[in-house]
Amino acid sequence: MIIVRTFGEVRAAAHSAVSLVPTMGYLHEGHMSLIGAASQTGDTTVVSLFVNPTQFGDSADFVAYPHNEARDAAIAEAAGCDIFFAPSADEVYPLGHRVTVSVGGVGDAMEGRFRHGHFEGVATVVAKLFAGVQPRRAFFGRKDAQQLAVVRTLRDGLRFPVEVIGMPTVREQDGLALSSRNTQIGKGVRREALSLSRALFSAADAIEQGERDSAAIAKIARSVAAATPQVEVEYLEVADSMSAAPIEEIDRDAFVAIAAKVGGVRLIDNIAVDAVTLATDRGIMLDKQSILYEED
Amino acid sequence: MIIVRTFGEVRAAAHSAVSLVPTMGYLHEGHMSLIGAASQTGDTTVVSLFVNPTQFGDSADFVAYPHNEARDAAIAEAAGCDIFFAPSADEVYPLGHRVTVSVGGVGDAMEGRFRHGHFEGVATVVAKLFAGVQPRRAFFGRKDAQQLAVVRTLRDGLRFPVEVIGMPTVREQDGLALSSRNTQIGKGVRREALSLSRALFSAADAIEQGERDSAAIAKIARSVAAATPQVEVEYLEVADSMSAAPIEEIDRDAFVAIAAKVGGVRLIDNIAVDAVTLATDRGIMLDKQSILYEED
Repeated sequence: MIIVRTFGEVRAAAHSAVSLVPTMGYLHEGHMSLIGAASQTGDTTVVSLFVNPTQFGDSADFVAYPHNEARDAAIAEAAGCDIFFAPSADEVYPLGHRVTVSVGGVGDAMEGRFRHGHFEGVATVVAKLFAGVQPRRAFFGRKDAQQLAVVRTLRDGLRFPVEVIGMPTVREQDGLALSSRNTQIGKGVRREALSLSRALFSAADAIEQGERDSAAIAKIARSVAAATPQVEVEYLEVADSMSAAPIEEIDRDAFVAIAAKVGGVRLIDNIAVDAVTLATDRGIMLDKQSILYEED
Repeated sequence: MIIVRTFGEVRAAAHSAVSLVPTMGYLHEGHMSLIGAASQTGDTTVVSLFVNPTQFGDSADFVAYPHNEARDAAIAEAAGCDIFFAPSADEVYPLGHRVTVSVGGVGDAMEGRFRHGHFEGVATVVAKLFAGVQPRRAFFGRKDAQQLAVVRTLRDGLRFPVEVIGMPTVREQDGLALSSRNTQIGKGVRREALSLSRALFSAADAIEQGERDSAAIAKIARSVAAATPQVEVEYLEVADSMSAAPIEEIDRDAFVAIAAKVGGVRLIDNIAVDAVTLATDRGIMLDKQSILYEED
């Protein structure tokens, strides 16, 4: 594996078609599954590490975001990365924030309501990665379901010839979806954080038993979440997988998404639903503790 | 030369690096000089023909824009085109106008003041062409000086690895800058339309004699334009070549730009100025009548 700092170096170092895994670092088993899948394609696997300031609404949140390049590079290499691309802010934003990409309505609901400007930040930085790295494939986690819809919209809208692959959410042993933010959850409310996945799994159970009505599904999930008063739900929605627009019933591929604050930490999670079979994808459960909790 | 309709066909047909010439059709000697220069690189030369609706403020103007694909394909082939790419609106805008690219201040002055939304339309369609065609080089006319600044800003901001080459303005025998719009100028005001280039050339004379002050340069050019009352000047500015921002004196590479209406037809023109030598680039004069006036 080599570590490079510029888009030009990535292009010069890539001797075959590229599979790209964009990350904001502090890698965990979710990222490792993306890197592993990219590596298995036989393409040159590029992992980018860039904590993108424009997708943070709150600058305190940006400053607090964990950052450890040496740790991330070691994990990426072990997972199969060929080129580790850790650019400076100047390399990504040479003109500051003058040039931006908007994706319209796909970013308006759910996260868009609570994180103003977030998806414009995501779309802009992913456009730069697609334009500057020129990958053939790009891998994203399904945990960020609306982000995946935004990326596909960006790809289709700007005509990037990139196959966008969504990989299943990876969960800790107790069901909590992996996120670098999990390390910020206080021990006193760790059990309460499981309320999110529990709510979604109850929704998944109802769907697999034939429930297609979004209001009924949301009601079940909300009642589970409400049993944990320390969890402050921001939204709980059933949404179209492609457009990320809330839908009234599951008549197309969809996801059930939740966002909630637990002890001051904002968490999101979702499960995917196949419209035809009503099978749900709840993700993959780790059988041991996540590397997130290993000492540096 | 082959004619193709989709981005995928362009990529499949290009067997070497691509030099791209984006056009809105109704080709003239200005476009031919771009295609010739692209062809001389030895790259696969792709000429795109797409009349982009989003860069017209006025839908009547869009509808009136001349269109003749067979004529354009023949001219492109004669000039050295390998792949003639004439996509449908659906191929360029599969999601309608959901995904857009903004370039900030570079599009605000001059044309931006008179053609609201124009440069967002230009930036968005050029981003699609860069993303979908993946050219190594792209050729644009310097006649659209602010557009060239917008394209370079887009390229730098979104990190496209595309060399953007600006080619000199080509002028008719009498000095009028070539534009498909020239065919719309009524015979009764054709002589009056020369007021634009005359005004710019008088500015160029003053600059080459050492004048660097923008107000003084503009005053000279305006007084020449004012001698033709049928010409309604919209703006006359001295602007930074890279940022397209108006400047008070020529202390960096610049252009002097004019926009005016002549008999209901809106025309633009400019001359480029080298900041060090104060040499001006007035473009290239044809020695015979333009192909614009040949019968179809």
